[in-house]
Amino acid sequence: MGPSPITVEGASVAGTDNTRQADRSVAPPVIILVEPQLGENIGMAARAMLNCGLRDLRLVRPRDAWPNRHAVAAASGADEVIERALVFESTSEAIADLNHIYATTARSRDMTTDVLTPREAAGRWRAASQAGDTSGILFGKEAKGLNNDDVALADAVLTVPLNPAFTSLNLAQAVFAMGYEWFQLDDETPASMLAVPKETRPASKGELQGLFDHLESELDASGFLRVVEKRPIMVRNIRNIWQRARLTEQEIRTWRGVITSLSRKRQK
Amino acid sequence: MGPSPITVEGASVAGTDNTRQADRSVAPPVIILVEPQLGENIGMAARAMLNCGLRDLRLVRPRDAWPNRHAVAAASGADEVIERALVFESTSEAIADLNHIYATTARSRDMTTDVLTPREAAGRWRAASQAGDTSGILFGKEAKGLNNDDVALADAVLTVPLNPAFTSLNLAQAVFAMGYEWFQLDDETPASMLAVPKETRPASKGELQGLFDHLESELDASGFLRVVEKRPIMVRNIRNIWQRARLTEQEIRTWRGVITSLSRKRQK
Repeated sequence: MGPSPITVEGASVAGTDNTRQADRSVAPPVIILVEPQLGENIGMAARAMLNCGLRDLRLVRPRDAWPNRHAVAAASGADEVIERALVFESTSEAIADLNHIYATTARSRDMTTDVLTPREAAGRWRAASQAGDTSGILFGKEAKGLNNDDVALADAVLTVPLNPAFTSLNLAQAVFAMGYEWFQLDDETPASMLAVPKETRPASKGELQGLFDHLESELDASGFLRVVEKRPIMVRNIRNIWQRARLTEQEIRTWRGVITSLSRKRQK
Repeated sequence: MGPSPITVEGASVAGTDNTRQADRSVAPPVIILVEPQLGENIGMAARAMLNCGLRDLRLVRPRDAWPNRHAVAAASGADEVIERALVFESTSEAIADLNHIYATTARSRDMTTDVLTPREAAGRWRAASQAGDTSGILFGKEAKGLNNDDVALADAVLTVPLNPAFTSLNLAQAVFAMGYEWFQLDDETPASMLAVPKETRPASKGELQGLFDHLESELDASGFLRVVEKRPIMVRNIRNIWQRARLTEQEIRTWRGVITSLSRKRQK
Protein backbone atom coordinates (compact mmCIF):
# COMPACT_ATOMS: atom_id res chain seq x y z
CA MET A 1 0.00 0.00 0.00
CA GLY A 2 1.38 3.36 -0.94
CA PRO A 3 1.37 6.28 1.46
CA SER A 4 -1.98 8.04 1.83
CA PRO A 5 -2.24 11.76 1.22
CA ILE A 6 -2.64 13.65 4.46
CA THR A 7 -3.97 17.09 5.08
CA VAL A 8 -1.26 19.26 6.45
CA GLU A 9 -2.17 22.23 8.51
CA GLY A 10 -0.68 25.58 9.37
CA ALA A 11 -1.00 26.32 13.04
CA SER A 12 -0.42 30.01 13.53
CA VAL A 13 2.17 29.83 16.23
CA ALA A 14 4.21 32.55 14.61
CA GLY A 15 3.07 35.25 12.23
CA THR A 16 4.11 34.86 8.62
CA ASP A 17 5.28 38.06 7.05
CA ASN A 18 6.16 37.54 3.42
CA THR A 19 7.74 40.95 3.11
CA ARG A 20 10.53 39.77 5.38
CA GLN A 21 13.15 37.20 4.52
CA ALA A 22 15.36 35.28 6.85
CA ASP A 23 18.45 37.30 6.10
CA ARG A 24 21.42 35.34 7.34
CA SER A 25 24.91 36.51 6.70
CA VAL A 26 26.10 32.92 6.94
CA ALA A 27 25.05 29.92 4.85
CA PRO A 28 22.88 27.40 6.70
CA PRO A 29 23.77 23.70 6.69
CA VAL A 30 22.52 21.38 3.96
CA ILE A 31 19.98 18.73 5.00
CA ILE A 32 20.65 15.28 3.52
CA LEU A 33 17.99 12.56 3.86
CA VAL A 34 19.41 9.12 3.16
CA GLU A 35 16.87 6.65 1.71
CA PRO A 36 13.77 8.43 2.95
CA GLN A 37 10.73 6.23 2.57
CA LEU A 38 7.58 8.33 2.81
CA GLY A 39 7.01 11.38 0.65
CA GLU A 40 5.07 12.89 3.55
CA ASN A 41 8.14 12.78 5.71
CA ILE A 42 10.25 14.47 3.05
CA GLY A 43 7.60 17.17 2.75
CA MET A 44 7.31 17.67 6.50
CA ALA A 45 11.09 17.87 6.72
CA ALA A 46 11.08 20.51 3.97
CA ARG A 47 8.49 22.50 5.87
CA ALA A 48 10.51 22.26 9.09
CA MET A 49 13.61 23.38 7.16
CA LEU A 50 11.99 26.50 5.76
CA ASN A 51 10.54 27.31 9.19
CA CYS A 52 14.15 27.56 10.30
CA GLY A 53 15.57 29.31 7.24
CA LEU A 54 17.21 26.19 5.76
CA ARG A 55 16.73 25.80 2.00
CA ASP A 56 19.11 23.15 0.67
CA LEU A 57 17.68 19.63 0.73
CA ARG A 58 19.41 16.58 -0.75
CA LEU A 59 17.90 13.12 -1.10
CA VAL A 60 19.93 9.94 -1.39
CA ARG A 61 17.99 7.12 -3.10
CA PRO A 62 14.48 8.14 -1.98
CA ARG A 63 12.28 5.03 -2.02
CA ASP A 64 9.59 6.60 -4.20
CA ALA A 65 9.94 8.54 -7.43
CA TRP A 66 10.97 12.17 -7.18
CA PRO A 67 9.30 14.68 -7.51
CA ASN A 68 6.69 13.22 -5.17
CA ARG A 69 3.19 14.70 -4.83
CA HIS A 70 2.88 13.55 -1.22
CA ALA A 71 6.02 15.49 -0.40
CA VAL A 72 4.62 18.61 -2.05
CA ALA A 73 1.35 18.33 -0.09
CA ALA A 74 3.12 17.76 3.23
CA ALA A 75 5.54 20.62 2.61
CA SER A 76 2.51 22.86 3.11
CA GLY A 77 3.92 25.77 1.14
CA ALA A 78 7.63 25.16 1.52
CA ASP A 79 7.73 24.72 -2.26
CA GLU A 80 11.09 26.37 -2.74
CA VAL A 81 12.77 23.67 -0.65
CA ILE A 82 11.05 20.88 -2.60
CA GLU A 83 11.82 22.47 -5.97
CA ARG A 84 15.49 22.98 -5.15
CA ALA A 85 15.97 19.48 -3.74
CA LEU A 86 18.73 17.44 -5.36
CA VAL A 87 18.71 13.65 -5.72
CA PHE A 88 21.85 11.50 -5.47
CA GLU A 89 22.65 7.84 -5.95
CA SER A 90 24.95 7.58 -2.96
CA THR A 91 25.73 9.39 0.26
CA SER A 92 29.33 9.88 -0.92
CA GLU A 93 28.12 11.74 -3.99
CA ALA A 94 25.68 13.79 -1.95
CA ILE A 95 28.42 15.09 0.35
CA ALA A 96 31.30 15.35 -2.12
CA ASP A 97 31.25 19.16 -2.37
CA LEU A 98 30.73 19.80 1.35
CA ASN A 99 33.41 20.36 3.98
CA HIS A 100 31.89 19.17 7.23
CA ILE A 101 29.41 16.34 7.72
CA TYR A 102 27.35 15.52 10.80
CA ALA A 103 25.41 12.28 11.24
CA THR A 104 22.22 12.27 13.30
CA THR A 105 22.10 9.08 15.30
CA ALA A 106 22.30 7.94 18.83
CA ARG A 107 22.32 4.27 18.96
CA SER A 108 25.74 3.50 20.26
CA ARG A 109 27.70 2.65 17.13
CA ASP A 110 30.82 1.02 18.48
CA MET A 111 32.71 3.75 16.70
CA THR A 112 35.08 6.29 18.15
CA THR A 113 33.51 9.60 17.27
CA ASP A 114 32.70 13.06 18.54
CA VAL A 115 29.13 13.31 19.78
CA LEU A 116 27.62 16.78 19.87
CA THR A 117 24.34 18.30 20.96
CA PRO A 118 22.45 20.23 18.24
CA ARG A 119 23.07 23.43 20.20
CA GLU A 120 26.81 22.88 20.18
CA ALA A 121 26.76 21.83 16.54
CA ALA A 122 24.86 24.95 15.49
CA GLY A 123 27.74 27.08 16.67
CA ARG A 124 30.13 24.98 14.61
CA TRP A 125 27.97 25.29 11.49
CA ARG A 126 28.10 29.04 11.87
CA ALA A 127 31.84 29.11 12.51
CA ALA A 128 32.40 26.91 9.46
CA SER A 129 30.20 29.10 7.32
CA GLN A 130 31.97 32.24 8.49
CA ALA A 131 35.22 30.60 7.36
CA GLY A 132 33.67 29.96 3.95
CA ASP A 133 33.10 26.24 4.54
CA THR A 134 29.92 24.27 4.01
CA SER A 135 28.26 21.84 6.41
CA GLY A 136 25.78 19.04 5.83
CA ILE A 137 23.65 16.97 8.20
CA LEU A 138 22.80 13.34 7.41
CA PHE A 139 19.49 11.78 8.48
CA GLY A 140 18.83 8.08 8.06
CA LYS A 141 15.72 6.32 6.85
CA GLU A 142 12.65 6.48 9.04
CA ALA A 143 12.68 3.02 10.57
CA LYS A 144 16.37 2.33 10.96
CA GLY A 145 18.39 5.49 10.92
CA LEU A 146 21.77 5.72 9.23
CA ASN A 147 23.87 2.67 8.55
CA ASN A 148 27.40 2.54 9.95
CA ASP A 149 29.01 3.21 6.56
CA ASP A 150 27.14 6.50 6.34
CA VAL A 151 27.99 7.39 9.94
CA ALA A 152 31.64 6.74 9.09
CA LEU A 153 31.44 9.49 6.44
CA ALA A 154 30.70 12.07 9.13
CA ASP A 155 33.05 14.25 11.16
CA ALA A 156 30.81 14.00 14.20
CA VAL A 157 27.58 12.51 15.41
CA LEU A 158 24.61 14.59 16.56
CA THR A 159 22.30 13.38 19.30
CA VAL A 160 19.21 15.26 20.41
CA PRO A 161 19.05 15.18 24.21
CA LEU A 162 15.60 13.68 24.86
CA ASN A 163 13.70 11.48 27.31
CA PRO A 164 15.92 8.37 27.34
CA ALA A 165 12.84 6.18 27.83
CA PHE A 166 11.24 7.36 24.57
CA THR A 167 13.55 8.65 21.90
CA SER A 168 11.71 7.47 18.79
CA LEU A 169 11.80 10.80 16.97
CA ASN A 170 9.81 11.60 13.85
CA LEU A 171 12.13 12.44 10.94
CA ALA A 172 10.72 15.95 10.53
CA GLN A 173 11.12 16.54 14.28
CA ALA A 174 14.77 15.57 14.06
CA VAL A 175 15.25 17.99 11.17
CA PHE A 176 13.36 20.65 13.12
CA ALA A 177 15.56 20.18 16.19
CA MET A 178 18.65 20.94 14.10
CA GLY A 179 17.05 23.84 12.24
CA TYR A 180 15.61 25.27 15.43
CA GLU A 181 19.01 25.48 17.09
CA TRP A 182 20.45 26.97 13.90
CA PHE A 183 17.81 29.68 13.84
CA GLN A 184 18.03 30.49 17.56
CA LEU A 185 21.77 31.03 17.23
CA ASP A 186 21.50 34.49 15.71
CA ASP A 187 17.92 35.27 16.56
CA GLU A 188 17.47 38.54 18.38
CA THR A 189 13.92 38.10 19.65
CA PRO A 190 13.85 39.42 23.21
CA ALA A 191 13.37 36.55 25.68
CA SER A 192 10.51 38.51 27.18
CA MET A 193 8.74 41.66 26.06
CA LEU A 194 5.44 43.42 26.66
CA ALA A 195 3.54 43.65 23.39
CA VAL A 196 1.35 46.74 23.25
CA PRO A 197 -1.23 47.38 20.49
CA LYS A 198 -0.12 50.16 18.20
CA GLU A 199 -3.08 52.41 19.01
CA THR A 200 -1.90 52.79 22.59
CA ARG A 201 1.33 52.91 24.62
CA PRO A 202 2.56 52.05 28.12
CA ALA A 203 1.13 54.52 30.63
CA SER A 204 3.38 57.16 32.12
CA LYS A 205 3.97 57.08 35.85
CA GLY A 206 2.00 60.32 36.11
CA GLU A 207 -1.02 58.68 34.50
CA LEU A 208 -0.65 55.72 36.85
CA GLN A 209 -0.47 58.08 39.86
CA GLY A 210 -3.64 59.77 38.60
CA LEU A 211 -5.39 56.40 38.64
CA PHE A 212 -4.14 55.68 42.17
CA ASP A 213 -5.33 59.09 43.36
CA HIS A 214 -8.74 58.62 41.75
CA LEU A 215 -9.34 55.21 43.33
CA GLU A 216 -8.02 56.19 46.74
CA SER A 217 -10.15 59.35 46.94
CA GLU A 218 -13.25 57.32 46.06
CA LEU A 219 -12.32 54.66 48.62
CA ASP A 220 -11.80 57.36 51.24
CA ALA A 221 -15.27 58.66 50.38
CA SER A 222 -16.82 55.21 50.54
CA GLY A 223 -15.22 54.40 53.89
CA PHE A 224 -13.16 51.45 52.59
CA LEU A 225 -9.96 53.06 53.93
CA ARG A 226 -11.43 54.42 57.13
CA VAL A 227 -9.13 52.48 59.54
CA VAL A 228 -6.26 54.98 59.70
CA GLU A 229 -3.54 52.58 60.86
CA LYS A 230 -4.36 50.12 58.09
CA ARG A 231 -4.66 52.67 55.32
CA PRO A 232 -0.99 52.76 54.22
CA ILE A 233 -0.65 49.01 53.77
CA MET A 234 -4.02 48.68 52.03
CA VAL A 235 -3.12 51.46 49.63
CA ARG A 236 0.23 49.84 48.96
CA ASN A 237 -1.32 46.45 48.24
CA ILE A 238 -3.91 47.88 45.87
CA ARG A 239 -1.33 50.00 44.05
CA ASN A 240 0.98 47.00 43.76
CA ILE A 241 -1.50 45.08 41.62
CA TRP A 242 -1.75 47.84 39.03
CA GLN A 243 1.97 48.50 39.19
CA ARG A 244 2.66 44.88 38.35
CA ALA A 245 0.20 44.85 35.46
CA ARG A 246 2.14 47.48 33.52
CA LEU A 247 -0.99 49.28 32.33
CA THR A 248 -1.31 51.07 29.01
CA GLU A 249 -2.63 54.58 28.70
CA GLN A 250 -5.85 53.10 27.27
CA GLU A 251 -6.23 50.78 30.23
CA ILE A 252 -5.76 53.70 32.67
CA ARG A 253 -8.71 55.42 31.02
CA THR A 254 -10.77 52.23 31.16
CA TRP A 255 -10.11 51.80 34.87
CA ARG A 256 -10.89 55.42 35.63
CA GLY A 257 -14.19 54.85 33.87
CA VAL A 258 -14.76 51.74 35.98
CA ILE A 259 -14.11 53.65 39.20
CA THR A 260 -16.35 56.52 38.15
CA SER A 261 -19.11 54.10 37.22
CA LEU A 262 -18.90 52.10 40.46
CA SER A 263 -18.80 55.30 42.54
CA ARG A 264 -21.85 56.71 40.78
CA LYS A 265 -23.84 53.54 41.41
CA ARG A 266 -22.94 53.56 45.06
CA GLN A 267 -23.95 57.20 45.45
CA LYS A 268 -27.51 56.54 44.24
CA MET B 1 -13.54 12.42 3.96
CA GLY B 2 -12.06 11.39 7.25
CA PRO B 3 -8.34 11.51 7.92
CA SER B 4 -6.33 8.65 6.43
CA PRO B 5 -4.18 6.52 8.64
CA ILE B 6 -0.52 7.22 8.10
CA THR B 7 2.45 5.09 8.86
CA VAL B 8 4.51 6.74 11.50
CA GLU B 9 8.12 5.93 11.77
CA GLY B 10 10.83 5.93 14.39
CA ALA B 11 14.00 7.56 13.14
CA SER B 12 16.78 6.54 15.45
CA VAL B 13 18.20 9.91 16.20
CA ALA B 14 18.50 9.12 19.86
CA GLY B 15 18.80 5.70 21.44
CA THR B 16 15.76 4.50 23.37
CA ASP B 17 16.66 2.86 26.65
CA ASN B 18 13.56 1.59 28.38
CA THR B 19 15.45 0.89 31.56
CA ARG B 20 15.82 4.62 32.07
CA GLN B 21 13.06 7.06 32.84
CA ALA B 22 13.07 10.79 32.44
CA ASP B 23 13.48 11.52 36.10
CA ARG B 24 12.59 15.15 36.65
CA SER B 25 12.39 16.57 40.10
CA VAL B 26 9.92 19.17 38.84
CA ALA B 27 6.54 18.66 37.17
CA PRO B 28 6.49 19.42 33.44
CA PRO B 29 3.86 21.72 31.95
CA VAL B 30 0.50 20.38 30.77
CA ILE B 31 -0.15 20.48 27.01
CA ILE B 32 -3.66 21.66 26.08
CA LEU B 33 -4.83 21.31 22.48
CA VAL B 34 -7.88 23.45 21.79
CA GLU B 35 -10.22 22.03 19.12
CA PRO B 36 -7.63 19.82 17.42
CA GLN B 37 -8.95 18.54 14.11
CA LEU B 38 -6.87 15.58 12.97
CA GLY B 39 -6.28 12.56 15.16
CA GLU B 40 -2.88 12.20 13.49
CA ASN B 41 -1.88 15.59 14.81
CA ILE B 42 -2.96 14.72 18.33
CA GLY B 43 -0.94 11.52 18.09
CA MET B 44 2.12 13.25 16.71
CA ALA B 45 1.86 15.86 19.45
CA ALA B 46 1.68 13.06 22.04
CA ARG B 47 4.77 11.47 20.58
CA ALA B 48 6.62 14.80 20.65
CA MET B 49 5.53 15.27 24.26
CA LEU B 50 6.87 11.94 25.44
CA ASN B 51 10.10 12.56 23.52
CA CYS B 52 10.53 15.52 25.83
CA GLY B 53 9.30 13.92 29.06
CA LEU B 54 5.87 15.61 29.01
CA ARG B 55 2.97 13.30 29.91
CA ASP B 56 -0.15 15.37 30.60
CA LEU B 57 -2.27 16.05 27.54
CA ARG B 58 -5.67 17.77 27.61
CA LEU B 59 -8.01 18.15 24.67
CA VAL B 60 -10.69 20.80 24.40
CA ARG B 61 -13.53 19.81 22.05
CA PRO B 62 -11.50 17.60 19.68
CA ARG B 63 -13.31 17.50 16.33
CA ASP B 64 -13.41 13.71 16.15
CA ALA B 65 -14.48 11.21 18.78
CA TRP B 66 -11.98 10.38 21.51
CA PRO B 67 -10.27 7.92 21.88
CA ASN B 68 -9.18 8.13 18.26
CA ARG B 69 -7.38 5.29 16.47
CA HIS B 70 -5.53 7.67 14.16
CA ALA B 71 -4.09 9.39 17.22
CA VAL B 72 -2.96 6.07 18.65
CA ALA B 73 -1.24 5.11 15.38
CA ALA B 74 0.49 8.46 15.02
CA ALA B 75 1.62 8.45 18.64
CA SER B 76 3.95 5.66 17.57
CA GLY B 77 4.30 4.15 21.00
CA ALA B 78 3.58 7.15 23.19
CA ASP B 79 0.55 5.26 24.46
CA GLU B 80 0.80 6.48 28.01
CA VAL B 81 0.22 10.06 26.87
CA ILE B 82 -2.81 9.08 24.78
CA GLU B 83 -4.27 6.94 27.55
CA ARG B 84 -3.90 9.65 30.18
CA ALA B 85 -5.32 12.40 27.96
CA LEU B 86 -8.30 14.27 29.41
CA VAL B 87 -11.10 15.79 27.34
CA PHE B 88 -12.86 19.04 28.26
CA GLU B 89 -15.82 20.98 26.93
CA SER B 90 -14.19 24.39 27.28
CA THR B 91 -10.77 25.94 27.63
CA SER B 92 -11.83 27.48 30.95
CA GLU B 93 -12.59 24.04 32.35
CA ALA B 94 -9.36 22.61 30.98
CA ILE B 95 -7.24 25.19 32.81
CA ALA B 96 -9.28 25.60 35.99
CA ASP B 97 -6.89 23.66 38.25
CA LEU B 98 -3.69 25.16 36.79
CA ASN B 99 -1.83 28.23 38.04
CA HIS B 100 -0.06 29.62 34.99
CA ILE B 101 -1.25 29.53 31.39
CA TYR B 102 0.72 30.28 28.24
CA ALA B 103 -0.85 30.71 24.80
CA THR B 104 1.12 29.74 21.70
CA THR B 105 0.41 32.27 18.99
CA ALA B 106 2.17 34.95 17.11
CA ARG B 107 -0.25 36.77 14.99
CA SER B 108 -0.32 40.18 16.53
CA ARG B 109 -3.49 40.08 18.61
CA ASP B 110 -4.05 43.73 19.41
CA MET B 111 -3.80 42.76 23.04
CA THR B 112 -1.39 44.01 25.66
CA THR B 113 0.45 40.90 26.75
CA ASP B 114 3.82 39.50 27.66
CA VAL B 115 5.42 37.67 24.75
CA LEU B 116 8.07 35.10 25.64
CA THR B 117 10.37 32.80 23.72
CA PRO B 118 10.01 29.08 24.53
CA ARG B 119 13.49 29.15 26.06
CA GLU B 120 12.53 31.93 28.46
CA ALA B 121 9.21 30.29 29.22
CA ALA B 122 10.87 26.96 30.04
CA GLY B 123 12.72 28.61 32.90
CA ARG B 124 9.45 30.01 34.20
CA TRP B 125 7.75 26.59 34.03
CA ARG B 126 10.53 25.19 36.14
CA ALA B 127 10.45 28.05 38.62
CA ALA B 128 6.68 27.67 38.95
CA SER B 129 6.98 23.94 39.44
CA GLN B 130 9.67 24.38 42.08
CA ALA B 131 7.25 26.67 43.90
CA GLY B 132 4.61 23.95 43.75
CA ASP B 133 2.60 25.63 40.97
CA THR B 134 1.36 24.07 37.74
CA SER B 135 1.71 25.47 34.22
CA GLY B 136 -0.23 24.73 31.05
CA ILE B 137 0.41 25.60 27.41
CA LEU B 138 -2.49 26.24 25.02
CA PHE B 139 -2.26 25.34 21.32
CA GLY B 140 -4.99 26.33 18.87
CA LYS B 141 -6.57 24.34 16.10
CA GLU B 142 -4.40 23.45 13.15
CA ALA B 143 -5.66 25.93 10.58
CA LYS B 144 -6.39 28.98 12.68
CA GLY B 145 -4.59 28.86 15.98
CA LEU B 146 -6.17 30.10 19.19
CA ASN B 147 -9.04 32.53 19.20
CA ASN B 148 -8.67 35.78 21.13
CA ASP B 149 -10.90 34.62 23.99
CA ASP B 150 -8.55 31.72 24.62
CA VAL B 151 -5.48 33.94 24.36
CA ALA B 152 -7.08 36.23 26.93
CA LEU B 153 -7.11 33.31 29.40
CA ALA B 154 -3.31 33.17 29.32
CA ASP B 155 -0.75 34.93 31.47
CA ALA B 156 1.62 35.28 28.54
CA VAL B 157 1.98 34.49 24.86
CA LEU B 158 4.67 32.17 23.49
CA THR B 159 6.17 32.75 20.08
CA VAL B 160 8.71 30.42 18.50
CA PRO B 161 11.42 32.54 16.86
CA LEU B 162 11.42 31.27 13.26
CA ASN B 163 11.98 32.38 9.69
CA PRO B 164 9.58 35.34 9.47
CA ALA B 165 8.92 34.55 5.81
CA PHE B 166 7.60 31.05 6.60
CA THR B 167 6.19 30.50 10.04
CA SER B 168 3.43 28.00 9.28
CA LEU B 169 4.35 25.48 11.93
CA ASN B 170 2.95 21.96 12.17
CA LEU B 171 1.06 21.49 15.45
CA ALA B 172 3.35 18.68 16.61
CA GLN B 173 6.39 20.82 15.79
CA ALA B 174 5.02 23.62 17.94
CA VAL B 175 4.50 21.18 20.80
CA PHE B 176 7.99 19.80 20.21
CA ALA B 177 9.56 23.27 20.34
CA MET B 178 8.11 23.81 23.82
CA GLY B 179 8.95 20.32 25.05
CA TYR B 180 12.45 20.53 23.59
CA GLU B 181 13.26 23.67 25.53
CA TRP B 182 11.75 22.14 28.65
CA PHE B 183 13.95 19.07 28.33
CA GLN B 184 17.14 20.99 27.53
CA LEU B 185 16.71 23.09 30.67
CA ASP B 186 18.00 20.45 33.05
CA ASP B 187 19.69 18.15 30.59
CA GLU B 188 23.28 17.41 31.44
CA THR B 189 24.43 15.92 28.15
CA PRO B 190 27.91 17.32 27.46
CA ALA B 191 27.82 19.73 24.51
CA SER B 192 30.67 17.75 22.99
CA MET B 193 32.25 14.47 23.94
CA LEU B 194 34.38 11.78 22.36
CA ALA B 195 32.47 8.50 22.38
CA VAL B 196 34.79 5.50 22.62
CA PRO B 197 33.61 1.88 22.20
CA LYS B 198 33.67 0.04 25.50
CA GLU B 199 36.19 -2.57 24.35
CA THR B 200 38.89 0.10 24.02
CA ARG B 201 39.95 3.40 25.63
CA PRO B 202 41.70 6.61 24.67
CA ALA B 203 45.41 5.93 24.07
CA SER B 204 47.92 7.09 26.63
CA LYS B 205 50.49 9.66 25.56
CA GLY B 206 53.17 6.97 25.89
CA GLU B 207 51.33 4.76 23.40
CA LEU B 208 50.98 7.72 21.05
CA GLN B 209 54.70 8.48 21.37
CA GLY B 210 55.41 4.82 20.55
CA LEU B 211 53.43 5.23 17.33
CA PHE B 212 55.30 8.42 16.45
CA ASP B 213 58.65 6.71 17.10
CA HIS B 214 57.68 3.69 15.01
CA LEU B 215 56.60 5.76 12.00
CA GLU B 216 59.54 8.14 12.19
CA SER B 217 62.12 5.35 12.41
CA GLU B 218 60.59 3.68 9.36
CA LEU B 219 60.50 7.00 7.51
CA ASP B 220 64.14 7.59 8.41
CA ALA B 221 64.93 4.15 7.03
CA SER B 222 62.96 4.76 3.85
CA GLY B 223 64.57 8.13 3.24
CA PHE B 224 61.36 10.16 3.48
CA LEU B 225 62.92 12.37 6.20
CA ARG B 226 66.37 12.57 4.67
CA VAL B 227 66.47 16.39 4.28
CA VAL B 228 67.82 17.28 7.70
CA GLU B 229 66.64 20.90 7.81
CA LYS B 230 63.07 19.88 6.89
CA ARG B 231 62.85 16.93 9.24
CA PRO B 232 61.57 18.78 12.35
CA ILE B 233 58.66 20.48 10.60
CA MET B 234 57.70 17.34 8.68
CA VAL B 235 57.69 15.32 11.87
CA ARG B 236 55.60 17.97 13.60
CA ASN B 237 53.03 18.06 10.81
CA ILE B 238 52.68 14.29 10.70
CA ARG B 239 52.39 14.03 14.47
CA ASN B 240 49.83 16.80 14.54
CA ILE B 241 47.34 14.80 12.48
CA TRP B 242 47.38 11.88 14.89
CA GLN B 243 47.39 14.19 17.89
CA ARG B 244 44.24 15.85 16.62
CA ALA B 245 42.50 12.55 15.96
CA ARG B 246 42.59 11.53 19.64
CA LEU B 247 43.41 7.91 18.87
CA THR B 248 42.27 4.97 20.96
CA GLU B 249 44.60 2.24 22.17
CA GLN B 250 43.04 -0.06 19.53
CA GLU B 251 43.68 2.46 16.78
CA ILE B 252 47.35 2.82 17.84
CA ARG B 253 47.76 -0.93 17.35
CA THR B 254 46.00 -0.75 13.97
CA TRP B 255 48.30 2.01 12.77
CA ARG B 256 51.41 0.23 14.01
CA GLY B 257 50.23 -2.77 11.97
CA VAL B 258 49.75 -0.51 8.94
CA ILE B 259 53.28 0.87 9.26
CA THR B 260 54.80 -2.58 9.71
CA SER B 261 52.90 -3.87 6.70
CA LEU B 262 53.88 -0.98 4.43
CA SER B 263 57.54 -1.20 5.53
CA ARG B 264 57.65 -4.92 4.84
CA LYS B 265 56.27 -4.42 1.34
CA ARG B 266 58.84 -1.78 0.55
CA GLN B 267 61.69 -3.98 1.76
CA LYS B 268 60.89 -6.78 -0.70
